[in-house]
Amino acid sequence: MRVAILAHEKFPDRAKTALGVLRYADDEVVAVLDRETAGRRVNDFVPDVQDAPIVEGMAALESPVDALLIGIAPIGGGFDERWRDDVRTALENGCDVVAGLHYFLSEDEEFARLADEHDCELRDVRKPPEDLTVAEGVAGEVDAEIVLTVGTDCSVGKMTTTMELARAAREAGHDAAVIPTGQTGIMIEGWGNPIDRVVSDFTAGAVEEMILEIGDERDYLFVEGQGSIVHPAYSAVTCGILHGAMPDKLVLCHAAGRETIHGYESFALPDRSTYVDLYESLSAPVSGGAVVAGALNTASLEADDDAREAVDEYATEIDAPATDVIRFGADDVLETLLE
Amino acid sequence: MRVAILAHEKFPDRAKTALGVLRYADDEVVAVLDRETAGRRVNDFVPDVQDAPIVEGMAALESPVDALLIGIAPIGGGFDERWRDDVRTALENGCDVVAGLHYFLSEDEEFARLADEHDCELRDVRKPPEDLTVAEGVAGEVDAEIVLTVGTDCSVGKMTTTMELARAAREAGHDAAVIPTGQTGIMIEGWGNPIDRVVSDFTAGAVEEMILEIGDERDYLFVEGQGSIVHPAYSAVTCGILHGAMPDKLVLCHAAGRETIHGYESFALPDRSTYVDLYESLSAPVSGGAVVAGALNTASLEADDDAREAVDEYATEIDAPATDVIRFGADDVLETLLE
Repeated sequence: MRVAILAHEKFPDRAKTALGVLRYADDEVVAVLDRETAGRRVNDFVPDVQDAPIVEGMAALESPVDALLIGIAPIGGGFDERWRDDVRTALENGCDVVAGLHYFLSEDEEFARLADEHDCELRDVRKPPEDLTVAEGVAGEVDAEIVLTVGTDCSVGKMTTTMELARAAREAGHDAAVIPTGQTGIMIEGWGNPIDRVVSDFTAGAVEEMILEIGDERDYLFVEGQGSIVHPAYSAVTCGILHGAMPDKLVLCHAAGRETIHGYESFALPDRSTYVDLYESLSAPVSGGAVVAGALNTASLEADDDAREAVDEYATEIDAPATDVIRFGADDVLETLLE
Repeated sequence: MRVAILAHEKFPDRAKTALGVLRYADDEVVAVLDRETAGRRVNDFVPDVQDAPIVEGMAALESPVDALLIGIAPIGGGFDERWRDDVRTALENGCDVVAGLHYFLSEDEEFARLADEHDCELRDVRKPPEDLTVAEGVAGEVDAEIVLTVGTDCSVGKMTTTMELARAAREAGHDAAVIPTGQTGIMIEGWGNPIDRVVSDFTAGAVEEMILEIGDERDYLFVEGQGSIVHPAYSAVTCGILHGAMPDKLVLCHAAGRETIHGYESFALPDRSTYVDLYESLSAPVSGGAVVAGALNTASLEADDDAREAVDEYATEIDAPATDVIRFGADDVLETLLE
């Protein structure tokens, strides 16, 4: 699929979804839309993902695309009216629009009418399916080994780690799949349930349903975790995924230098070892998942030496092998995960 | 308010909501509707709640009521078509209908039309308000002391314990209120958010919002807990309430003799002391709530002596004072909660 990605004024640092798609999706990214950095290229900012020109808007595209993806989200997941022209242009050209906002494009009167007139699709990936229900507690029974990424906080690299581990497992010859639980993962993989948006009673069930769907056909499932088990706002989602996925193994993700909960700075992060105890003791009665590896996001550290030192220290803190999956690759932890 | 409660074929043992309303609501219960036990009285089955005749259906009522409450829920929260006649009769008599089902009566075409024609209300208490959002992590800042009931499983008495503790605190001269999080609590109190039905990202926020609404005007808030922190399906709701409520004190509720998770019998309940550790270590980074008391439901034990022994044993297991709030009252734990 040929796509354009909207990331106005936020590329690359605050465009988590855009970056995830550029890095992991099979889609050919024809252009990124960002008024602020228009005229430059993706690789000017991020060298290790697929390259594409950055343009002013949909009207500046030189060739047609199949879909426009909304690659950013304001806090609260609303729709920014300054994006309307681009969405309108896309639809008028018969191009699908894919969004992961809490605001559903398919319920916007103008967009619904344009999509209908031009025979194209509005796909709101954060809209959960209607038929979700409570978990039965059977995800652990599938043939695949289940690996879940868990975190010390939001935005520490759970999605990236999940994707890198699945890729590394595939490269090592295993049949590994990703279970996507958030908007970016869903856009990359082309399926999935937006767990943070489902009815809270169905949190675990919505994860279980995905695992049952493909778990007997694969060797390994890498489940994308969300939030953190001690997050004042999002721990419910984290807990539901932990029990719904019934993982065998956990990978604890952390960002170097993070000491307080992002956006909730009055809450200090507990010690890393406290997280290991918490995730394991909470998992024990349901599936007995153990923290067997760590993933440290060292993007804030410039020198590779410092990053290596931070990773080693982190490995000691959690008493398990660790790596930065982007900087140092997944090999240092892969053996532990696949044994 | 004068009410009738529908509990067909389920009164009293499988009519949790009906019993809760009979025991705790300010409403005058004019009749219980149950085809199977019609002709007898509530007190024939349950001596310690307000009495009322049991009748065949709405058509058998001798005097008008203000509302018909649906006091039972099938698994899945659907609407049983065998209830339609009673709901229809109620609406035709201008009587409101209050339900806590996942199936919303207000979205049923016939009921909506009848309510409109006869100028009465369909109140779906499990329909969350539209304006819920994520928690800010500030519930702990209200003036009131926050006490949360937590459980070893579903249906162990968290709602009952919450109501009894609030009542006992009021009788001891304190200004205590209940924070209702489930359908029965909401029907009893006349307000509240149905936490299991909100968007999972908003679980903690929906609890926080209620605490902020009344927390500065009260001495004590008794928050109704849900599920269990190790429940394969419902732990997400439990975890969200724990972090959203930011409790100072926890009361661990358990049912004597319960050894496996109800409806999920392949999962054994962990030791009682494991629950204490789990709830406390999970609460520590956010509000530091401690398990200071226990509530044991001894309904399955006939002799008071056996019940007393079970309560004493339970107190030892959790290393805190305990009681059966229905059988022995709340006094044995009240001092610990109010100090």
